[in-house]
Amino acid sequence: MDKIQIFDTTLRDGEQVPGCKLNMAQKLKVAKALDDLGVDVIEAGFPISSPGDFAAVQAISKQTKNAVVCGLSRSVEKDIDSAAQALQYASRPRIHTGIGTSETHIKYKFDSTQDAILERAVAAVKYAKQYVEDVEFYAEDAGRTDNEYLARVCQAVVAAGATVLNIPDTTGYCLPHEYGEKIKYLYENVEGIDKAILSTHCHNDLGLATANAIAGIENGARQIECTINGIGERAGNTALEEVVMIIKHRLKGVYATDVNTQMLNEMSRFVSDSMCMPVQPNKAIVGDNAFAHSSGIHQDGVIKNRENYEIIDPREVGINQSSIILTARSGRAALAYRAKEVGFDLFKDQLDIAYGEFINLADKQKEVNNDDLNVMLSKLFSVSV
Amino acid sequence: MDKIQIFDTTLRDGEQVPGCKLNMAQKLKVAKALDDLGVDVIEAGFPISSPGDFAAVQAISKQTKNAVVCGLSRSVEKDIDSAAQALQYASRPRIHTGIGTSETHIKYKFDSTQDAILERAVAAVKYAKQYVEDVEFYAEDAGRTDNEYLARVCQAVVAAGATVLNIPDTTGYCLPHEYGEKIKYLYENVEGIDKAILSTHCHNDLGLATANAIAGIENGARQIECTINGIGERAGNTALEEVVMIIKHRLKGVYATDVNTQMLNEMSRFVSDSMCMPVQPNKAIVGDNAFAHSSGIHQDGVIKNRENYEIIDPREVGINQSSIILTARSGRAALAYRAKEVGFDLFKDQLDIAYGEFINLADKQKEVNNDDLNVMLSKLFSVSV
Repeated sequence: MDKIQIFDTTLRDGEQVPGCKLNMAQKLKVAKALDDLGVDVIEAGFPISSPGDFAAVQAISKQTKNAVVCGLSRSVEKDIDSAAQALQYASRPRIHTGIGTSETHIKYKFDSTQDAILERAVAAVKYAKQYVEDVEFYAEDAGRTDNEYLARVCQAVVAAGATVLNIPDTTGYCLPHEYGEKIKYLYENVEGIDKAILSTHCHNDLGLATANAIAGIENGARQIECTINGIGERAGNTALEEVVMIIKHRLKGVYATDVNTQMLNEMSRFVSDSMCMPVQPNKAIVGDNAFAHSSGIHQDGVIKNRENYEIIDPREVGINQSSIILTARSGRAALAYRAKEVGFDLFKDQLDIAYGEFINLADKQKEVNNDDLNVMLSKLFSVSV
Repeated sequence: MDKIQIFDTTLRDGEQVPGCKLNMAQKLKVAKALDDLGVDVIEAGFPISSPGDFAAVQAISKQTKNAVVCGLSRSVEKDIDSAAQALQYASRPRIHTGIGTSETHIKYKFDSTQDAILERAVAAVKYAKQYVEDVEFYAEDAGRTDNEYLARVCQAVVAAGATVLNIPDTTGYCLPHEYGEKIKYLYENVEGIDKAILSTHCHNDLGLATANAIAGIENGARQIECTINGIGERAGNTALEEVVMIIKHRLKGVYATDVNTQMLNEMSRFVSDSMCMPVQPNKAIVGDNAFAHSSGIHQDGVIKNRENYEIIDPREVGINQSSIILTARSGRAALAYRAKEVGFDLFKDQLDIAYGEFINLADKQKEVNNDDLNVMLSKLFSVSV
């Protein structure tokens, strides 16, 4: 079974979003929670970008017990110096450096040439290697980079000592089979690829970040860069909770991660609250409705057998509440089920009486919760002694 | 170029979610907006489920000018009677009927056999054909149904007159290549498939609903069932805005839809407001941050050339505001760009002065908007006459 490394960039790609800025104490709490969650790498920040980011990477380096701590840099010596300095107290430091490799980036961002960019990439990796053993190289906009040139860059930086090759779909451009084919091409054509691992870093501009990361894994990548709740630049990144649950349920026996899935729901709420970034109710795995069955047909099916409509037991991600939501669309089966949960095991006649009362109540409010139910059923059936 | 039919189920799969319930006037407004948007089919409700739903399907049938209006039913005569009655005033009515075909559904939901379920499927389609020409059949939980049996069911219902074969991944179980292979298998093995079209209906439990719908199209499907903002049971359905923009940008020249993309942003807000279902800022295409560039590196890149970090021009989906958000992480390039937008074309010396003031202001607030900028720059540089 192949271990998939989970590289969390909530504190870098996530935190750079407007409104998501955290103070030092909050960053340390998020980093501690990520380490407890079992991620393999924490990208803690971009040290050269501001004194606050530098200090945060330094403090997270000191604090972190298990995960690799990673700092971002451009292919610029002062960036790499700053990252190395910020990471000096980490027990497992990684410098993440790189440069844009697509035609668009080379032409419009750098006004340069493919050969000159390749030289800068190699120089950056060599420079970073003076400080740390573990150097990850990113080929920015790899999603739109010609595969043949991308392979040349990868081969050169691996020869220069890169331990991880990050292949970012920076603009969220690729379709899953395209991204998978790109990873496959690199896996098969980069000489020395056995000395490094390929990493996915997918943006969600077309809603495909999770699918692309999985396509990457199925074609040779062994690290996924992702964030809690899929936050990040623009439409965000691959959502950690989604890829972890896909690997656990659908790629079982082939791949595995070290993430403790029972912490996912709590982690999602913690990051959402700290960063003031709401999670929509229909968000996969961690949305409020992710395990909520509402139509009568579905509720009846789930009560007969959970697997009729659920592929994941909500308890696996730390959700213990009932997934049968009582609304005006619920039937008798749902009412009987929820009544039992609050301690009323109703006979058929009682259920008929209760159902009439329930529909009156449900028509007046969006949802009937356990308290409502308890009051209603107690009034109907409780015996005063 | 192949036309892809967009089947919108915001008013059925979306509206059945707790809290999303709409009144009649709201339903009619949403249906009108969908018709104006250019969707091919509006699934207006599930007529047998409640008198309110019946009335809504009837009223939407009378109102709708262009789209096919569709009503849901189980493979039960009274359901089909109700759907037919509700649709009687539609100029282009479609009855959507079907039954669960997976082992789990056959065993635990129906306590039945494959042969008996196939018979019920055929009987339902024949019964519906008495009322309307256009009958869509759904094989519920097709995502977990054995392909060979699924093909047998499809073949039988096409022979009975089904015009559309809906292959729902009801539990959001499939990986994109699995769903694509399923559609391909049906496309290649169902005799008479030229008399019907294959339709995708994907749920988002693993965050793959959009990728699965696209995999379906690439393997022979010609209709996508989807909702505005991806709302729907549990983690929701394929998001209309995502598949439409993928087809427009990444499958250009091969496939096309009739959706007017410039209405997408407004439509998203309208549905979100009407149904009280928030859209997270990092939602693809329609989230508040979907086109917002925040880090200094990205802002500088976008100002040099939009295509460095953007694959879709926000105006294509009806967003006209600037995507360069001014925060404490913005650099001089971003400030100069936004200053020009509000009418100040700054010289280098002026930019230096303005940047100092700007950083002070930005440190105090999350974002600096056009009003803030106008006040700040006017104080510094406006001449009173």
